[in-house]
Amino acid sequence: MATGEFDLIGRYFEHQKINRSDVDLAIGDDCALLRVPEGYHLAISTDSLVAGTHFLADADPKQVAHKALASNLSDLAAMGATPAWVSLALTLPSFDEQWLSAFCEGFFQLAEQYNVQLIGGDTTKGPLSITLTVQGFVPVGQALTRSGASSTDAIYVTGQLGDSAAGLALLLKDKQCDNTALSQALMTRHFMTMPQVEAGTLLRGKASAALDISDGLIADLGHILKRSNVGAEIYTEALPISAELAAFCETPEQAQQMALSSGEEYQLCFTVPVEQCDDVEALMAKQGIQISRIGQLTENKGIVLLNNGEPVNWQLSGWDHFESESK
Amino acid sequence: MATGEFDLIGRYFEHQKINRSDVDLAIGDDCALLRVPEGYHLAISTDSLVAGTHFLADADPKQVAHKALASNLSDLAAMGATPAWVSLALTLPSFDEQWLSAFCEGFFQLAEQYNVQLIGGDTTKGPLSITLTVQGFVPVGQALTRSGASSTDAIYVTGQLGDSAAGLALLLKDKQCDNTALSQALMTRHFMTMPQVEAGTLLRGKASAALDISDGLIADLGHILKRSNVGAEIYTEALPISAELAAFCETPEQAQQMALSSGEEYQLCFTVPVEQCDDVEALMAKQGIQISRIGQLTENKGIVLLNNGEPVNWQLSGWDHFESESK
Repeated sequence: MATGEFDLIGRYFEHQKINRSDVDLAIGDDCALLRVPEGYHLAISTDSLVAGTHFLADADPKQVAHKALASNLSDLAAMGATPAWVSLALTLPSFDEQWLSAFCEGFFQLAEQYNVQLIGGDTTKGPLSITLTVQGFVPVGQALTRSGASSTDAIYVTGQLGDSAAGLALLLKDKQCDNTALSQALMTRHFMTMPQVEAGTLLRGKASAALDISDGLIADLGHILKRSNVGAEIYTEALPISAELAAFCETPEQAQQMALSSGEEYQLCFTVPVEQCDDVEALMAKQGIQISRIGQLTENKGIVLLNNGEPVNWQLSGWDHFESESK
Repeated sequence: MATGEFDLIGRYFEHQKINRSDVDLAIGDDCALLRVPEGYHLAISTDSLVAGTHFLADADPKQVAHKALASNLSDLAAMGATPAWVSLALTLPSFDEQWLSAFCEGFFQLAEQYNVQLIGGDTTKGPLSITLTVQGFVPVGQALTRSGASSTDAIYVTGQLGDSAAGLALLLKDKQCDNTALSQALMTRHFMTMPQVEAGTLLRGKASAALDISDGLIADLGHILKRSNVGAEIYTEALPISAELAAFCETPEQAQQMALSSGEEYQLCFTVPVEQCDDVEALMAKQGIQISRIGQLTENKGIVLLNNGEPVNWQLSGWDHFESESK
């Protein structure tokens, strides 16, 4: 049961700038009432972030809010869906005005950028956690699933990979770096990743399969391979590495290993039939979206890593996860 | 990030009997893909249940699952919506097969009864909590909101009120009862309340306002009064009291006080224009749904309690909540 104080928390979330025409009733009744456009699928995803499991309890609430919403919007992007609405279930140990206000700032800043309206939720007392349910639209027949890839398709990723893992290692003090500007840049990228919504919608009807990289490229690509019943070769030298990650790592191979296993990147991994690769590359270049062709699907199951054409047998975190999934 | 063990939890939820034709893709991709029928609003509600706040950590998981889903479906019922889909975010301190299996039993038993399909969610490690997002359909223009009541409308409730509070008092050992069968019946009603989905859909286009009783009749009725800008008189002798609650309480007035403040009842409170009262009563009687006319809206703001025509000034829990809301 809500207490008076917790009722007040709800009021923090009443003031948002987004006011979509497909929302007929939002916060304040038993349900929100919404309209989905004709000819579109409703795409829905739910994710929880729990203090102590997904973020440190004393993490910057603005960054936590950003990460929570970005990771959910990333699921819509991976489906090729345009974001529309979000519900927020927030559990807080106590009423902390400063925390709430910073959380709202991070949340609404990103929500406004993607025209996403908060349509409801629940605020409860308890151990700190955030559960979001995001909803968006994708034309029927054009959603990007995990199961449509063929063994001749090329494998692509958006953006750059590995910065999130490097930033996390610095945050957790697993790694050290004397260059303060460099560390700061990598730690910020861990929290402030942006969902690849534009890339996802551009790939509608063009990519044969897609997903977002949340557990690491190797682990996540495994889901496409399993669902589409194919294998993959990855050209590790083709992995997109940022200048910061290259400077942070001792060797190119070390950076490539981070790129293969780094979780919470929220870049898209997608596959494209070879005859459409030129079109897709031109389309993305036109929109200024970086994509890299990093490998090739194969009939042989499993993943083969090639470093400048030579097979390598790197031990990667995230690999076990994929192994257990593929059984 | 999901660990291998927590991935396994997801598999508990893959086996459900409900397979709706409006679900084109459910669990296992980045998003679920769903279709909303033309001419219908999508109604959405989110609620969290946190161990230690909403239920005891050692509570029967079957009952916890039932309560979590029932309270969410109750929000759809209060809107006049037909339930369709549910997403489940489950946070668990550890992998406990017995707990999960009992939770699933309670969850799917109720889900099947209302033809509700689980379309996705998230399982994470952390302090025990459950967040559900339910979705349903209601024809555009027929939803039951809180804001449509007029000062001449009659006030009704479905079912019986007060059993949930009595059951909770027994569970928490705030009250005692020598009659084991009686205590057991009341405690079971606290957990095993049923959402009034049928009543809600029958009231579409007939009730002027409606909500479900989650914080107590007085507290919840306050939301209708505030949103509709009216007041109310309640005839306490007309409150529907079960035989068990009457036996449990020392006086009829004590039972009526419980009925006024008992939370988590998940009965509907609704208002009806006087000229439609006969029709609504006949319609409900035909379907075997118990409803009671318990009062009258008024132009004067606030709530007046009348016991056999005499104003009474009972101190009720839940009253403060309403007072703070109405300011």
